[in-house]
Amino acid sequence: MEGIAIMTSGGDAAGMNPAIKAAADHAMHLGYEPFLVDDGLRGLIDDKIEKVSDHDVSDIIHRGGTILRSSRSKRFFEYEHRLAAYENLKKRGIEKLVVIGGDGSFRALNQFYADFQVPFAGIPATIDNDIPGTDYCLGVDTALNMIRQSVDSIRDTANSFRRAFVVETMGRHCGYLAMASAVTSGAEICMVPELEYDLDSIGERLRVKYQGHPNFLIAIVAEGCNMSDYLNRWIGDTLKMDSRLTILGHIQRGGSPTVRDRLMASKFAVGAVESLHRGETCNIMIYKSGHFGTLPIHKVADSQLEMDPALVAMCKKLCK
Amino acid sequence: MEGIAIMTSGGDAAGMNPAIKAAADHAMHLGYEPFLVDDGLRGLIDDKIEKVSDHDVSDIIHRGGTILRSSRSKRFFEYEHRLAAYENLKKRGIEKLVVIGGDGSFRALNQFYADFQVPFAGIPATIDNDIPGTDYCLGVDTALNMIRQSVDSIRDTANSFRRAFVVETMGRHCGYLAMASAVTSGAEICMVPELEYDLDSIGERLRVKYQGHPNFLIAIVAEGCNMSDYLNRWIGDTLKMDSRLTILGHIQRGGSPTVRDRLMASKFAVGAVESLHRGETCNIMIYKSGHFGTLPIHKVADSQLEMDPALVAMCKKLCK
Amino acid sequence: MEGIAIMTSGGDAAGMNPAIKAAADHAMHLGYEPFLVDDGLRGLIDDKIEKVSDHDVSDIIHRGGTILRSSRSKRFFEYEHRLAAYENLKKRGIEKLVVIGGDGSFRALNQFYADFQVPFAGIPATIDNDIPGTDYCLGVDTALNMIRQSVDSIRDTANSFRRAFVVETMGRHCGYLAMASAVTSGAEICMVPELEYDLDSIGERLRVKYQGHPNFLIAIVAEGCNMSDYLNRWIGDTLKMDSRLTILGHIQRGGSPTVRDRLMASKFAVGAVESLHRGETCNIMIYKSGHFGTLPIHKVADSQLEMDPALVAMCKKLCK
Amino acid sequence: MEGIAIMTSGGDAAGMNPAIKAAADHAMHLGYEPFLVDDGLRGLIDDKIEKVSDHDVSDIIHRGGTILRSSRSKRFFEYEHRLAAYENLKKRGIEKLVVIGGDGSFRALNQFYADFQVPFAGIPATIDNDIPGTDYCLGVDTALNMIRQSVDSIRDTANSFRRAFVVETMGRHCGYLAMASAVTSGAEICMVPELEYDLDSIGERLRVKYQGHPNFLIAIVAEGCNMSDYLNRWIGDTLKMDSRLTILGHIQRGGSPTVRDRLMASKFAVGAVESLHRGETCNIMIYKSGHFGTLPIHKVADSQLEMDPALVAMCKKLCK
Repeated sequence: MEGIAIMTSGGDAAGMNPAIKAAADHAMHLGYEPFLVDDGLRGLIDDKIEKVSDHDVSDIIHRGGTILRSSRSKRFFEYEHRLAAYENLKKRGIEKLVVIGGDGSFRALNQFYADFQVPFAGIPATIDNDIPGTDYCLGVDTALNMIRQSVDSIRDTANSFRRAFVVETMGRHCGYLAMASAVTSGAEICMVPELEYDLDSIGERLRVKYQGHPNFLIAIVAEGCNMSDYLNRWIGDTLKMDSRLTILGHIQRGGSPTVRDRLMASKFAVGAVESLHRGETCNIMIYKSGHFGTLPIHKVADSQLEMDPALVAMCKKLCK
Repeated sequence: MEGIAIMTSGGDAAGMNPAIKAAADHAMHLGYEPFLVDDGLRGLIDDKIEKVSDHDVSDIIHRGGTILRSSRSKRFFEYEHRLAAYENLKKRGIEKLVVIGGDGSFRALNQFYADFQVPFAGIPATIDNDIPGTDYCLGVDTALNMIRQSVDSIRDTANSFRRAFVVETMGRHCGYLAMASAVTSGAEICMVPELEYDLDSIGERLRVKYQGHPNFLIAIVAEGCNMSDYLNRWIGDTLKMDSRLTILGHIQRGGSPTVRDRLMASKFAVGAVESLHRGETCNIMIYKSGHFGTLPIHKVADSQLEMDPALVAMCKKLCK
Repeated sequence: MEGIAIMTSGGDAAGMNPAIKAAADHAMHLGYEPFLVDDGLRGLIDDKIEKVSDHDVSDIIHRGGTILRSSRSKRFFEYEHRLAAYENLKKRGIEKLVVIGGDGSFRALNQFYADFQVPFAGIPATIDNDIPGTDYCLGVDTALNMIRQSVDSIRDTANSFRRAFVVETMGRHCGYLAMASAVTSGAEICMVPELEYDLDSIGERLRVKYQGHPNFLIAIVAEGCNMSDYLNRWIGDTLKMDSRLTILGHIQRGGSPTVRDRLMASKFAVGAVESLHRGETCNIMIYKSGHFGTLPIHKVADSQLEMDPALVAMCKKLCK
Repeated sequence: MEGIAIMTSGGDAAGMNPAIKAAADHAMHLGYEPFLVDDGLRGLIDDKIEKVSDHDVSDIIHRGGTILRSSRSKRFFEYEHRLAAYENLKKRGIEKLVVIGGDGSFRALNQFYADFQVPFAGIPATIDNDIPGTDYCLGVDTALNMIRQSVDSIRDTANSFRRAFVVETMGRHCGYLAMASAVTSGAEICMVPELEYDLDSIGERLRVKYQGHPNFLIAIVAEGCNMSDYLNRWIGDTLKMDSRLTILGHIQRGGSPTVRDRLMASKFAVGAVESLHRGETCNIMIYKSGHFGTLPIHKVADSQLEMDPALVAMCKKLCK
């Protein structure tokens, strides 16, 4: 029986576990022998590869993070370590790979294919939602709902005191989490790397709105803006509201996967195994304009990240 | 200033409150005066209509159900009561309606338009996800996540005892909630009105799988199958597993709206106000194949409900 | 090194896993070698006993149910099977037992002590909170909070429709879950096996309160009353409100243990290991009037279950 | 009918809303006319006092924060403003006060009693759990469970990467939240203002435990230690683990009150109204050694804050 190995790589994201389960189940369904790689690329090199037992994946669909753990491996950039990885696969009859992670991981496996012709199928998973070519990456919906719960909790206090809160979300280059959170939490201010903001104009808008009787105020700021501290002080100084800063940090990465993440995980995983089964070699699973499909890795690299224009339009009102 | 009235009608669903807020905000943004109708069609007749104050909608985005309450009204079938409703609107200068609800409500307002030429825009909201012409209705994602939390809780017990659980979800004619829940909770059995099932074949599949050592088992059954009790006993008799029945009931309707429901609510609501602003008369907001759009009410009536084929394929494996 | 075996027995309850971890940690701390018994009494007989590795318990504190699974075993009533269990312990040098479960399990181990002089310490765990001699059993707080989330969700719908809901909780002989839930969810009606109710008087009270304009209504009924169906119809017939029945079922058993259950679990578990370390033989851990202590099993059997009188007083207002 | 006014004051805490409801209900039950004061002491001065309608409190039991809002008022230190407050009460026939808040608020009302002989009953509410004389303050259980959810989410990521996380909780002088969270989240390090720590000894303990193969590591630090940043770097430098800092901030204050907070709120509130009804003047409600009672305000001031010794003992193992 031909082997398919399943691994997670790069930053962890909710939805990885249901994707592991669905990939293993569908591989078995199509007559493959599924294997699990522990510790990502590092585990490929260090031979942490085991056959899937039913027990391994029967109770993981609801768990956050990844049971396979993940890692970032510098050694994989060197041929000798990739060769070791290849030999670990070969001796077990593993001829195909499913990798759940970000585009850095996909590029690493593309190089691996160039070296040893081991085809892979990539499943996009990162809470930043910043992989070009796909509208959705696993983990985003769960991250958004974790942020929602935190902001709804903060709102209880904000409302009790007519106070302002600045909430910093993850997102170095991509403000998707901050934008979607701002629109869905009734925030009055949103700052993300992609959009220009105008504090004078924001101040004027809120002064007109509050007419001297400020309600509570929530501002959502993406980490990549480096503006959380400044905005927090600005609200105190300019709007004369007591303002508190909260940095959500890794709370956003965890949590039991939402139904949407579980469903997307199933579809991506079935798609990945099908792609390998059809003999395709270096494809990334995508969800674009409402449709599932695949995109060769070199086209992902050429794609531009496209932000939902309706969401952008709603956020622009919160930047000025 | 021209008035726009916003109302909820039919069964309540999470996402109604953020839709109310977004519709009121966008109406104001376009220069309309927004009103809120309490108690649905009944409130139109009984004149429970008030101008929106900022206070009314500033803190509702995270609440389940509908702050406007809803109702089903037989009186609205009679011309004299519709006339009363019309006069209530007219005396306030309300010339347009946004209605958030199901297709029964849309048909009622279509008749109202035929009588008095008051245009409306409909926002689909029902946890059954059974309005033809749109892939998504407000409330579905929240309902699915409420079911998920319940099933994940039951799983803790199931796993502790190697026991079986039959979980009945809502859904009289449409098994969407049950299908999506089955696939995302690792259920082994799924029964919905749309798909044929074969208990003999299910029994055989599970006997082969368990080989005399049954793991825990979760079965998801849509209300409309009327099979929950029977299946519960069948598992005990045929699979020789201790099986327990849970009927989720109205737990599924409530809960704070998820981010997806809040985001869809915003987009549907902005779309509805824009549609009225363009002078359109009896349009329903839809989300179809990944795109937002509008559909005239008469085309909704003509549409067939289309179920996601990938989801159906995954469920068919659980029906036999 | 002397061995201590840890097991769960009877119905599962949240808090069992943190108790397992705390007992294993404290046993190690005092120089014992901890073992885990899988499958409860059945596992003792069938020799499912393993040394604890750090990996086994390092990540279980937040999981619902019990990782050791539980069971009810009729074979344990027979001497020959208890002898087999004894030999399984003896060959591993296990001389003491920590059992987490209900009073049935405690009695079984008391017999085991009479036969083979293997001392045990019992940790009360059952969501029914019905073990005499202790005010608290593990799992109760988590169960109450699971019920709370369900009832709060139902309340969203109830409030949207001015509708009534009857919610059935677990509890065959003991109405603690129903009473505490009724008081903390703003229910208007509560029915439990311990308290008499008077439907005429309830009807009169609510008619006066609603004055023809009923608000929403929540009624909490313990399973053991067998009154859920009847009350549901009675509300429709007598109060003329649309009423829906929800049966929570095993949702109440699961869920991640609350902080209170984790904290009580730690204290009970440390107490259990300390009790065995002091050479005590058949003690149950208790929490009584705000203090932790131990009670010999024969005194548990003699104790009366005492219900919190302040809670009873608050509930009596909801029974008439 | 004699009036009783209910107010919240100081920092907000979950459990304030159920306490408001229970106090209003019980005041009515005993024949008083209940009033609600908006905005705390400031609202007393500025005459924001209204009769309770059933609508006001019928749907608040499950909401975080306080519907009455809270405030800190410097003006209340001046006699003229207290006089204004007194006249606002007098003109409505309000002769008694229930205040839900911290000891600063209690002292302010004690002065108010000295001035105008308006008796009050205080309900301790602060997530810091630092009011002497009582073992429990409203809001603590909810805060702990909010922290739990955040830490459990972080654990998903920590576990995926064998990474360390430093989590800062609230608590300037009192480390109760941090201590209870550390013990119930399986943390390996806990730092609070009350306990000395020894980083060398902690390092040695963890090096022995991990033997070069570190598992994930969670450290909980109370705000008042000012050690979060330092510890985060120390873990990287000394234990050679990748470590991330999370500052929970006001997430801890919000969230729907847990059952324990709702139940304590009911009992404290009933106790407060009963105390006033008996003619007592400046009593604080307490829960001490498992019993509810009252303590005159001057005795609260003289009391020492006592920390649960079993909890302290468990934490001491995490400080060295």
